[in-house]
Amino acid sequence: MLFQSDDTALSRRLLKLTSLLDVAKAMSAERDLDLLLPLILYEASKVVEADRCSLFIMDRERNELWSKVAQGSKNEIRLPVGSGIAGQVASTGAVINIPDAYADERFNRSFDTSSGYHTQTILCVPMRDASGEVTGVIQALNKRNGRIFDAEDEELLLALGANAAGAIENALLHEEINRLFEGFVSASVVAIEARDPSTAGHSERVANLTVELAHALEHTATGPYANIRFSPMELQELRYASLLHDFGKVGVREAVLVKAEKLYPHELDMLRARFQVARKDLQLQSYRRRLTAVKLRGDKALPEIEAEEEERLGEELKRLDEVLEFTLTCNRPTVLAQGGFERLQELAQLTYTDAFGQERPLLQTPEIRSLSITRGTLSAEERREIESHVDHTYRFLSQIPWTRTLRRVPEIAYAHHEKLDGTGYPRAIPSKTIPVQSKMMAITDIYDALTASDRPYKKAVPHTLAIDILSREANSGQLDKELLTVFTEAEVVRKVTARAKK
Amino acid sequence: MLFQSDDTALSRRLLKLTSLLDVAKAMSAERDLDLLLPLILYEASKVVEADRCSLFIMDRERNELWSKVAQGSKNEIRLPVGSGIAGQVASTGAVINIPDAYADERFNRSFDTSSGYHTQTILCVPMRDASGEVTGVIQALNKRNGRIFDAEDEELLLALGANAAGAIENALLHEEINRLFEGFVSASVVAIEARDPSTAGHSERVANLTVELAHALEHTATGPYANIRFSPMELQELRYASLLHDFGKVGVREAVLVKAEKLYPHELDMLRARFQVARKDLQLQSYRRRLTAVKLRGDKALPEIEAEEEERLGEELKRLDEVLEFTLTCNRPTVLAQGGFERLQELAQLTYTDAFGQERPLLQTPEIRSLSITRGTLSAEERREIESHVDHTYRFLSQIPWTRTLRRVPEIAYAHHEKLDGTGYPRAIPSKTIPVQSKMMAITDIYDALTASDRPYKKAVPHTLAIDILSREANSGQLDKELLTVFTEAEVVRKVTARAKK
Repeated sequence: MLFQSDDTALSRRLLKLTSLLDVAKAMSAERDLDLLLPLILYEASKVVEADRCSLFIMDRERNELWSKVAQGSKNEIRLPVGSGIAGQVASTGAVINIPDAYADERFNRSFDTSSGYHTQTILCVPMRDASGEVTGVIQALNKRNGRIFDAEDEELLLALGANAAGAIENALLHEEINRLFEGFVSASVVAIEARDPSTAGHSERVANLTVELAHALEHTATGPYANIRFSPMELQELRYASLLHDFGKVGVREAVLVKAEKLYPHELDMLRARFQVARKDLQLQSYRRRLTAVKLRGDKALPEIEAEEEERLGEELKRLDEVLEFTLTCNRPTVLAQGGFERLQELAQLTYTDAFGQERPLLQTPEIRSLSITRGTLSAEERREIESHVDHTYRFLSQIPWTRTLRRVPEIAYAHHEKLDGTGYPRAIPSKTIPVQSKMMAITDIYDALTASDRPYKKAVPHTLAIDILSREANSGQLDKELLTVFTEAEVVRKVTARAKK
Repeated sequence: MLFQSDDTALSRRLLKLTSLLDVAKAMSAERDLDLLLPLILYEASKVVEADRCSLFIMDRERNELWSKVAQGSKNEIRLPVGSGIAGQVASTGAVINIPDAYADERFNRSFDTSSGYHTQTILCVPMRDASGEVTGVIQALNKRNGRIFDAEDEELLLALGANAAGAIENALLHEEINRLFEGFVSASVVAIEARDPSTAGHSERVANLTVELAHALEHTATGPYANIRFSPMELQELRYASLLHDFGKVGVREAVLVKAEKLYPHELDMLRARFQVARKDLQLQSYRRRLTAVKLRGDKALPEIEAEEEERLGEELKRLDEVLEFTLTCNRPTVLAQGGFERLQELAQLTYTDAFGQERPLLQTPEIRSLSITRGTLSAEERREIESHVDHTYRFLSQIPWTRTLRRVPEIAYAHHEKLDGTGYPRAIPSKTIPVQSKMMAITDIYDALTASDRPYKKAVPHTLAIDILSREANSGQLDKELLTVFTEAEVVRKVTARAKK
């Protein structure tokens, strides 16, 4: 209590003013609209001693009042400005104080009829912002102990409303900017994913799965994660880290991202063109030999020479075709067959003579290297380029001036490809330095990569098989077993899918 | 005035409380820290009747107090928590009220010494947030009329501080989120631009130029834009529209973005490989003819046949080399020479026989089409793909839930390639439906594209020449003449460059 006085009426007013000042402080500190509105209603009811209060916010664009929370009601209500008691206060800006609702023609009984509530007295005042504009309406119902609302109530509710207006405006703005930021992040992730159609939607799905896993963890009563809790801010941080974990793919060349075979399409084109030159070369050599043979053996031997050479050329061309055939087989993203690598090394010795008489290798060293990839389609270098997306992501996220509550976003995203046994990338850090959020994301990321359709190098894997593969990685010490158990047992995937369908 | 009383002391207190409530309202509505802090100091000085006030905000991470505005000082001041009077209040949370500064050993005279101010009385109170934590300190100096600060002053300043704490927190948070959003937008623009190294920094430069042009316009006293004004929110909108105008380039393939010649590198490789096959083919045909000639003319004629054929082959190969040479000349991004197009059409008739005996065109139809591009390196289709970046930008920006003050960002960015005479793209809309912001951006965008170094298809153009080119486009009715005049006369480029160097 700030002031004391012997004068009862005055000191009561002082008390109320002091408490209003406290209310103003509490309101200005609350930026979550879903908590702020009930707080305002609670304080408003207290200050004017009303049974309940409602609050309506002005939507200037639609010329409507809307309410998220009327005490005693759960749905959003929308009223046209100008209609009803609240609507009139909103349009005129004048206070309406009704001592007997049922005797007042402005009162609409339908709410009482449907709710069973019995309205007796009503005090409805405008909320005005700092520039004096009406930004909403507060309505108090039923002054306690059967009394009616008096001039002091009007003044107090107006004063409270003026402070509430600023707080609501802040909260709305806060909500607006957060929505803007989240909207921008999501849209830019979608734009970047569109470069590689096979990963469309991946980041959003990983974000949903990871946040759902976080919720599931909070209900875990045993094991190392029994006491883990995520604040709303931490969940938001986790969501952004997940949404943005692959942002760095914008720094990886499209050709590498969508590489479907061991050789790039244009490399294969060039290889085929070279085999054409080699084929022509065999033909040319054969005709050269024929001419030389004629010089030695005379034109009488020509039919014999032709027959010999046709046979030899036929065989040479068949061998060349076989080499091409084998090369095309190696090019597919299957596992290289037994002995395939050795045969490729042998083929590296083959040469042909180009159109300018230069002897050249039929298969170039980089091609042999690419075709020798034992699994998948990426060379070590290309794998490093793909893996570099994590560094790009980290560099990108580190430039961003995150707010204090989101400051770990870069760190969490940075570690999503690290493994518990220290075999991950890019830093190969050990388990104890990997944030739990990254360990969670490692599971959801692999799960989605496995089950998503249309990755260039593999088909979609069914749920059960994906869990089997994850379990194997957990058993081999790469993924966190406990987290995977929660992921499976809490049916994280089913919950996310069910929510998406709603 | 909310309450009246005959009791002078009480009514004075009521007045002060009422005014504090008004101050709380005004503070909660002010989200710009640079306006909020002076407002708090002004109100604080008024409520405790001090000569001047200072405000320090707690920086928990560095355990320091910082001040943007001490009344009578302009620089940011930083103090360690715990040291000095403000530092002690911050660390203990207890009020310090000093009736005679020079008699108090806690008082540091150095500020007076350097400023020439004479401190007599000091009242220093903590600011506490809703959870009771100290978030800063307010310090009042020199109670007016030589009096000392009393208990009521302490209570009033504490109450004001509590409300100021919430308002400051809101303003800081607002600043933080805005910085986060701006940081994210800038970083993602940089990431997307990195795909095409020749445009690195373009968006940021266009944003700076356009906003500077907006400032310049505000000082224009004559012409159609004499009365144009941009609010801080409109400038922000313009800045985001400019920063994001090329965001849609993320939807254009890298190969098209960086295309440096009329044929893509792999297309040229394939063309060269085909010429190798054709060369081999000429050789093979020559040897075939030799063999046929031997059959007809007998082996005695062989030296003669060989001589004839060598000469013929030599000429054929020379012609083929010339065709390749001409093709390579056409491939460069220069303007196609007189008659070049007709010669390309003739060359389209040339054929060779591939390694499987199939007769095929030496130059394929798509190659002839690309090589026939009369200016630059892009085919009509590729030009459309590049131009589609505006549609991508618009689609991308339209998905984002812009706040009310930024809602025109998509519309402004959408029209940055429209021309006043309706010949622009993608909609070819007439001048009156192009926002002035887009007309401004059209100038700055072209200016930067011209003067930036390292675009694949052209060298950087010096400033004067760039202005000449822009003037020609303005005179031909494509760009806005008045805007270009302001752009030139207000030395927008020089101002932006000078600011960047600071």
